[in-house]
Amino acid sequence: MTINKDTLHVEPASERTRLKRYHWLAKYDRDTINAIIDVGIVCQVGYVIDGAPYVTPTNHWRIDDYLYWHGSSASRMLKAQQSGIPVCFTVTHLDGIVFSRAAFNHNVNFRSVIAFGNAELCSEEVKREALPVFVDRLAPGLWDYARKPTDQEWKATKVIRMKLNEVSAKVSDGLPDEEPDDLKTDLWAGSIGLRLEQLKPVPDPKLREGIRAPSFVEDFRYLK
Amino acid sequence: MTINKDTLHVEPASERTRLKRYHWLAKYDRDTINAIIDVGIVCQVGYVIDGAPYVTPTNHWRIDDYLYWHGSSASRMLKAQQSGIPVCFTVTHLDGIVFSRAAFNHNVNFRSVIAFGNAELCSEEVKREALPVFVDRLAPGLWDYARKPTDQEWKATKVIRMKLNEVSAKVSDGLPDEEPDDLKTDLWAGSIGLRLEQLKPVPDPKLREGIRAPSFVEDFRYLK
Repeated sequence: MTINKDTLHVEPASERTRLKRYHWLAKYDRDTINAIIDVGIVCQVGYVIDGAPYVTPTNHWRIDDYLYWHGSSASRMLKAQQSGIPVCFTVTHLDGIVFSRAAFNHNVNFRSVIAFGNAELCSEEVKREALPVFVDRLAPGLWDYARKPTDQEWKATKVIRMKLNEVSAKVSDGLPDEEPDDLKTDLWAGSIGLRLEQLKPVPDPKLREGIRAPSFVEDFRYLK
Repeated sequence: MTINKDTLHVEPASERTRLKRYHWLAKYDRDTINAIIDVGIVCQVGYVIDGAPYVTPTNHWRIDDYLYWHGSSASRMLKAQQSGIPVCFTVTHLDGIVFSRAAFNHNVNFRSVIAFGNAELCSEEVKREALPVFVDRLAPGLWDYARKPTDQEWKATKVIRMKLNEVSAKVSDGLPDEEPDDLKTDLWAGSIGLRLEQLKPVPDPKLREGIRAPSFVEDFRYLK
């Protein structure tokens, strides 16, 4: 990403991250991009094996300018990506449905990020720093509270990262963009928001008696 | 998909749709797969251009054994896919966070589908049958209510479809799968569910006075 000082407008880092369709929804500033990444728990990672596309839903987290995801040492995704192949990362939040007066102008409100880069297998050192950040991101305090991984568990888990460089966001949070003639009709238009809500904690039925939920569970608030 | 009559167990249609990791979460029956596809409004479609992976979030719908998505005739995705290239379709619903007693056994509950196939540009006839189904899927009755597309609008929109064949689902809705020794500790474990909730309809501020929301808006219920 480069900042054009003449216009104070943030420009995309490459032509393939420049939004062409609905370009007025594009956001290239890193704060907007990071916020969309950080409220997501599930992302999709696209990659190519033998010329064919694969998309794997997985959990991600971000530390500074790197995106991380993890997996079993034995997984197909990890085996393919550890050689440093190109990947396409996406995260999408559905925020609502937009009803238009015209059949072809209905839309959805959403926030999404797309990043292009190369997968990089993390060293043992980077892995051991990155995974506690992932665990604490689910709920702050979780890493300290839980039973720490054994050597075997560390060995069975690998972490991939990619540098955030070619990245763009797309944010649609508006009302329908109508044709002037449609505004004169008696048709209704508007939107219905959708929001991920958290339910009450459910204890494991195998929980021994008298064990109370720790504060990070009581205080858990899913970011939206 | 083939049904093995000896075991009454539904088998995957190909080796690449056979789940290897966490294979006990795999579902290959079409009812489960269709239900996961049909409650989703946003999917991700992976494809390859010049050897590089692209993943585009878009809206999808299903008619019988075909998945559909649409776009502008000018979009990069449509231009690439209309030649019939291989695509990987995914839809993922995040259902909650699973807290384990062990740092590496935390998990998320989710429902996801992955399908491999080839993109196919729909004929004008198929397109004109498929798009009203998409509009009515957002809210039944919406197609009849809204202003119908002009010739120009029809021309500007293309529809891609892929046949559902190599497809699998993955469903995780459990509690933590713990090591026996961890069950003996005083640590809490359980889950917190997450669910997409709908908010109240917001009318377009440009709405002319006296226009009431139609019943498909009043009765709108987002499927979960």
